[in-house]
Amino acid sequence: VAARLPMVPQGGRTGLAGGAVPLVPGSVVISLTRMDGLREIDAVGRTATVDAGCTVEQLDAAAGAQGLTFPFRIGSGGSAQIGGVVSTNAGGIRAWRHGGARQLVIGIEAVLPDGTVWSSLRGVRKASMGPDLGQLLIGAEGTLGIVTGATVELRRQEETGPTAFVAVRTVEDAVALFSALEAGGGLDACELISQAGMSRLAGMPGAPPLPLGMDHPWYVLVEWAGTTTDGAGLLEPAEALIVDGVMAASEQQRNDLWRIREMHGAACRRAGHPRQHDVAVPRSAIAAFMAEATNVARQRAPAWQPVPIAHIGDGNVHFDLVPRDAGSSPAFDCELSASIHDLAHRCGGVFSAEHGIGAARANELHRLMPPGNAQALAAIKQALDPHGLMNPGKVFGSLA
Amino acid sequence: VAARLPMVPQGGRTGLAGGAVPLVPGSVVISLTRMDGLREIDAVGRTATVDAGCTVEQLDAAAGAQGLTFPFRIGSGGSAQIGGVVSTNAGGIRAWRHGGARQLVIGIEAVLPDGTVWSSLRGVRKASMGPDLGQLLIGAEGTLGIVTGATVELRRQEETGPTAFVAVRTVEDAVALFSALEAGGGLDACELISQAGMSRLAGMPGAPPLPLGMDHPWYVLVEWAGTTTDGAGLLEPAEALIVDGVMAASEQQRNDLWRIREMHGAACRRAGHPRQHDVAVPRSAIAAFMAEATNVARQRAPAWQPVPIAHIGDGNVHFDLVPRDAGSSPAFDCELSASIHDLAHRCGGVFSAEHGIGAARANELHRLMPPGNAQALAAIKQALDPHGLMNPGKVFGSLA
Repeated sequence: VAARLPMVPQGGRTGLAGGAVPLVPGSVVISLTRMDGLREIDAVGRTATVDAGCTVEQLDAAAGAQGLTFPFRIGSGGSAQIGGVVSTNAGGIRAWRHGGARQLVIGIEAVLPDGTVWSSLRGVRKASMGPDLGQLLIGAEGTLGIVTGATVELRRQEETGPTAFVAVRTVEDAVALFSALEAGGGLDACELISQAGMSRLAGMPGAPPLPLGMDHPWYVLVEWAGTTTDGAGLLEPAEALIVDGVMAASEQQRNDLWRIREMHGAACRRAGHPRQHDVAVPRSAIAAFMAEATNVARQRAPAWQPVPIAHIGDGNVHFDLVPRDAGSSPAFDCELSASIHDLAHRCGGVFSAEHGIGAARANELHRLMPPGNAQALAAIKQALDPHGLMNPGKVFGSLA
Repeated sequence: VAARLPMVPQGGRTGLAGGAVPLVPGSVVISLTRMDGLREIDAVGRTATVDAGCTVEQLDAAAGAQGLTFPFRIGSGGSAQIGGVVSTNAGGIRAWRHGGARQLVIGIEAVLPDGTVWSSLRGVRKASMGPDLGQLLIGAEGTLGIVTGATVELRRQEETGPTAFVAVRTVEDAVALFSALEAGGGLDACELISQAGMSRLAGMPGAPPLPLGMDHPWYVLVEWAGTTTDGAGLLEPAEALIVDGVMAASEQQRNDLWRIREMHGAACRRAGHPRQHDVAVPRSAIAAFMAEATNVARQRAPAWQPVPIAHIGDGNVHFDLVPRDAGSSPAFDCELSASIHDLAHRCGGVFSAEHGIGAARANELHRLMPPGNAQALAAIKQALDPHGLMNPGKVFGSLA
């Protein structure tokens, strides 16, 4: 602190917005990896207090040993650390049901830029103790301090499955499917996958067997939890919406279905660097957003193919654009990303859902947030980090 | 702002910590009561955006018209306004299951002390958009700005009931009852009531009929929601813990059972001004807290009777002390409150759960929070409200 070196906190380095990448020469990277202790698990109260460097899977395994779970699922859970989850306000596949970082974090411990330690670690969720500065660090990506620990909620472990993979005609039908299944209870995951995504997977070495024909425009991966009813009965309320479908009959088949989802990103990267968009829109607007974004992309970037994937429950659409021809690197119109972001906001949503702002989206954050917000955030940044040493260039943008 | 008058935001004036009471002569009270619009309800996405002056019941009724509910229950919901709920980070009877203000609020609009408007109102829950300054206003009780609107989560409406009232031998048994019933699913409320509380109710004009004999040390009011199983079956997992019990057989009986809970506070006030404590401890520590707090109170304030009531699910114990003889005003040892607060913190909990800090508990907040927190909060207060005009004397304490 005395030397006034820029500091860049780093967790599991699984972030997708570059929040942990140093931008300023002479920056000190502060890795939390070795600060990975489980401080306390309260099995009755269902809370865990852990160091920031504890990975999502470590935490979940420790909870599992007591019949509980940390109900947060992201593909990178084996490496992603709690400090990073908190700092990016990460979401994931089950956030629509269990909440993302903001909802699951009860208390936070952080070192502020002047060396002060803030702590709201506690074993209870209900607390009205004045302003909770720790909450400001959720989503701050290390720009206001370094998260060193957190108390999080645990939930009762539920039995997993059944798991189904179905084909539907339209995005509207996929959203209606979600609504019908959610009303039935026990729905845990509902992931929308496009024909384009399935085609890219089909051509990939090591890809899982594709369970349905490739002639459907949209597919939905569905999983229930904690239910004792069998899968066929569970799909019944959505029968009219389903064109074709399979139910996993074994753990192997279940794994194969999930590998479709998990390898989707890798399948897209084979053709070159995809342009990612991480928007969230109200569920009622997913179909309209998807149609219009696809339209805009076709017109303005014909060399790029939309390969969207979405967490239907919380309207989080990863509207990624992938070079149509493998190996080519077509020029990309950056204004197109701005149009897609604008569209999300016009739909009542946000341009940044779960990956964070990092450096790449700082300009977009400033463009899209109300002017009052920028002014208020600048005041907070100035108060806590007057020398701008904390993760410079991220979220707040300017490298001045 | 230009005149630098102290401002005191005021909602439904149902607060229990005096947060809305002006302390400084010449203060301007800013009532949000006429700013009571419902801006938008998204029935598919299950969110509502409302003005701060909208009452809890108004919001819930509007949600109800669409088959949804704002799952927040406090006795004062008919008057309490959303702005106050947010500003005190209020909790209530169902917070253990559905979350309190912090968990239910998705976005906030507020006027900051310099007149800047902050807004994170949005129709989606998943958003990683940098630090959310609005989160800092949850629990700030108007000391950092005035909340003018909020986007909150709605949930599917569930059928209410069954409702039961049971007697148990010990607090341990009451907590075990909660655990057994919660595991069965559908549990919605679980309120612990003492023999002392029942006795005070018994002597009160207009009191509901008391459903069980008065010879039990503890009683629990239990309610389920969204379940189709009948009440007797639902109580079965806790059978061994129940000494006596009734199940409401009609809506009238259900209302009578709830009136026991609702009139509890009034019954305690008949004997004079109760000394209230609003602590939360981990569920596993409720029994130990209750025993020790009772012990301490007996020794140090024999003229005061402990009449605790608790939301078992989140360990929120209202450990209230009431003059033993109606009409007398025994001297109260204020250090006793400090001891009870210390005890909650030694149990891993907090001294302030759901009522807020207001003016009366500001000293306790400063005494019990880590020194780093006080320093960090002072920096934030200075940055946002350099002239100390926002609700002076509350939360941050000093009237300087």
